[in-house]
Amino acid sequence: MMEKDIYFMQKALELAKKGQGKTSPNPLVGAVIVKNNKIISKGFHKKCGLAHAEAVALKRAGVRAKGATLYVNLEPCFHFGRTSPCVDKIIKAGIKRVVIAVKDPNPQVKGKSIRKLKKNKVKVSLGVCQKEASEINEVFFKNIKDNLPFVVAKAAQSLDGKITTSLGESKWITTDKARQFSRRFRDRYDAVLIGAETLRKDDPKLNGLDKIPYKIIISSSLDLPKNSYIFKNFSNKTYVFTSSNLKARNKLPKNIKVFSSKATKEGISLKKLLNKLYQLGIMSVFVEGGADTLGRFFSQNLVDKAYFFIAPKIFGGKDALSSVGGAGVKQIKQSPELKKPKIERIGTDILIWGYLKKVSYAKARKKS
Amino acid sequence: MMEKDIYFMQKALELAKKGQGKTSPNPLVGAVIVKNNKIISKGFHKKCGLAHAEAVALKRAGVRAKGATLYVNLEPCFHFGRTSPCVDKIIKAGIKRVVIAVKDPNPQVKGKSIRKLKKNKVKVSLGVCQKEASEINEVFFKNIKDNLPFVVAKAAQSLDGKITTSLGESKWITTDKARQFSRRFRDRYDAVLIGAETLRKDDPKLNGLDKIPYKIIISSSLDLPKNSYIFKNFSNKTYVFTSSNLKARNKLPKNIKVFSSKATKEGISLKKLLNKLYQLGIMSVFVEGGADTLGRFFSQNLVDKAYFFIAPKIFGGKDALSSVGGAGVKQIKQSPELKKPKIERIGTDILIWGYLKKVSYAKARKKS
Repeated sequence: MMEKDIYFMQKALELAKKGQGKTSPNPLVGAVIVKNNKIISKGFHKKCGLAHAEAVALKRAGVRAKGATLYVNLEPCFHFGRTSPCVDKIIKAGIKRVVIAVKDPNPQVKGKSIRKLKKNKVKVSLGVCQKEASEINEVFFKNIKDNLPFVVAKAAQSLDGKITTSLGESKWITTDKARQFSRRFRDRYDAVLIGAETLRKDDPKLNGLDKIPYKIIISSSLDLPKNSYIFKNFSNKTYVFTSSNLKARNKLPKNIKVFSSKATKEGISLKKLLNKLYQLGIMSVFVEGGADTLGRFFSQNLVDKAYFFIAPKIFGGKDALSSVGGAGVKQIKQSPELKKPKIERIGTDILIWGYLKKVSYAKARKKS
Repeated sequence: MMEKDIYFMQKALELAKKGQGKTSPNPLVGAVIVKNNKIISKGFHKKCGLAHAEAVALKRAGVRAKGATLYVNLEPCFHFGRTSPCVDKIIKAGIKRVVIAVKDPNPQVKGKSIRKLKKNKVKVSLGVCQKEASEINEVFFKNIKDNLPFVVAKAAQSLDGKITTSLGESKWITTDKARQFSRRFRDRYDAVLIGAETLRKDDPKLNGLDKIPYKIIISSSLDLPKNSYIFKNFSNKTYVFTSSNLKARNKLPKNIKVFSSKATKEGISLKKLLNKLYQLGIMSVFVEGGADTLGRFFSQNLVDKAYFFIAPKIFGGKDALSSVGGAGVKQIKQSPELKKPKIERIGTDILIWGYLKKVSYAKARKKS
């Protein structure tokens, strides 16, 4: 029984992942309907505004759904949003049993659908593939929990932690394969964020392989090169955050959106920035650097997940730039830490990644 | 046939490793004598000055050695050294076949024993477990090839390459398990080397778990704390290398051996230092830091093997000390690189280690 449930839930998870990078601010959801041990229909949530996974699968199954089992990686919705509640559709279709990976933490749902199903004599099994289901919706869970975007940090460095040589050379540290891998993340998250210095030095495109993400620049002075690629291309998706007086925005092309807020001791408040992004509907941010920007995100405990691409090279050099700069932590015990980091080989490079140990937002806020 | 040979050669290699840390300047050698698929005697080289592995095994086998097969991980010696040539003992004992993992690169041997065996109607098979046999005698092969000690570098750092926080805290970055692991290396190599700054800041003991290695300090000024542990304990194994005038040696306890040589632009010449150590019979050096010392060894391409212990923590901080300092390389293509690095987990820490890509000594000399 259990094994069968895992098998079909895996199928639902695979379907859910097809929506990766497209469903924001909605979660990734996949559903399969099973009768006599056979999948009779499938569905996944393709894009915000389109039908939910359960609705797609139910529609495809039609009358055959009666007496069947529905597998879905997230508790079906209870509330009227862009679509009518899935929980009602499930009941109406005569589904006999619903297998759910994880409860929807959204206060508008949070077990309500499960209770309603049970009340209507639908059997419910909760918790199948829970860990994987939480991970594929890492963004959504963070959003609901903290009302903040999910923050992913990335560094590509030498084995001794450098992102430039002593002469400032930075291209390329890792292999093309690793860089391609990292570009994939831009498809997965809503926005890419860099500091002004990175824009000045590298003039990056910041595009994904399949998607143009939002491009967020932090700049205290607004002294940015007007001819930068990102100001000239897809510029409606480029936002600049500054602590400068808004008058200084004249330095930038007119079509660029600029957000200004008072500076803290360390420059613009990253918490305010993240709050603003969240209000703007940006549910996840991929922080690509440079050193100072990464340093501030890390030392303020604002990073949820981190990827370190490591080339097995030793640059050395006390003047070479280190991957994570800023003020840094003062004591080792204060340092952000990956819990159970994963290690992968990407060609000749090494990728170490993981989730940061939980630091409550309140605590992080107090610290900075 | 081949499989049997590998099996018995593995036994010889296991025996050889028992001498680890004790045979210098001799190689690690193990031997087994096999008759009718059974090991009839074994031997390994325990310590410089004591009998060779083959001699031990042959003596134990006695007359039973006649017609048997000898497995040994290094070509038997041809020359009279502290003991008489093993090749003659093998022929005399009536051994029928000798299986050798790897040729002895020593010019006094280098295939001569193999030729002599064949001439005397002893069958010879060469190359069984060659890679492993080369690795366990990494020190010996380097010594013979370059007339220099084998240099092993070690760093213990945060994920972003730091060895201190921005406030200078450095204890402890990695877990006790990783530090214990690293202490084991002091048993394996002849000497441990550190820079003056590390001595001043950490006052380390630099002892192995089973052995007191030679302790080498590099100090340009000779301004070293007289009460350091290593000056007060086992001080006959403590050597100081300086570019100071030898008069300055009065700053140090009288019993400490001081070697002086003219400074290069970057301080004392590491090549001269390594040459001197080699003359002193120190066949391998474990360079433990600090950042500046490691930086100089790396950027001059003097490192043969490197161990990076990485705690999955992010210190950040542009003022935090990076694991490998010094001048560093100017261009990425000049950077020393591990070939096919190995990755291991040591508790919650990560160990990345490997051999440095071959850079000929002549080339390295020219570069610096």
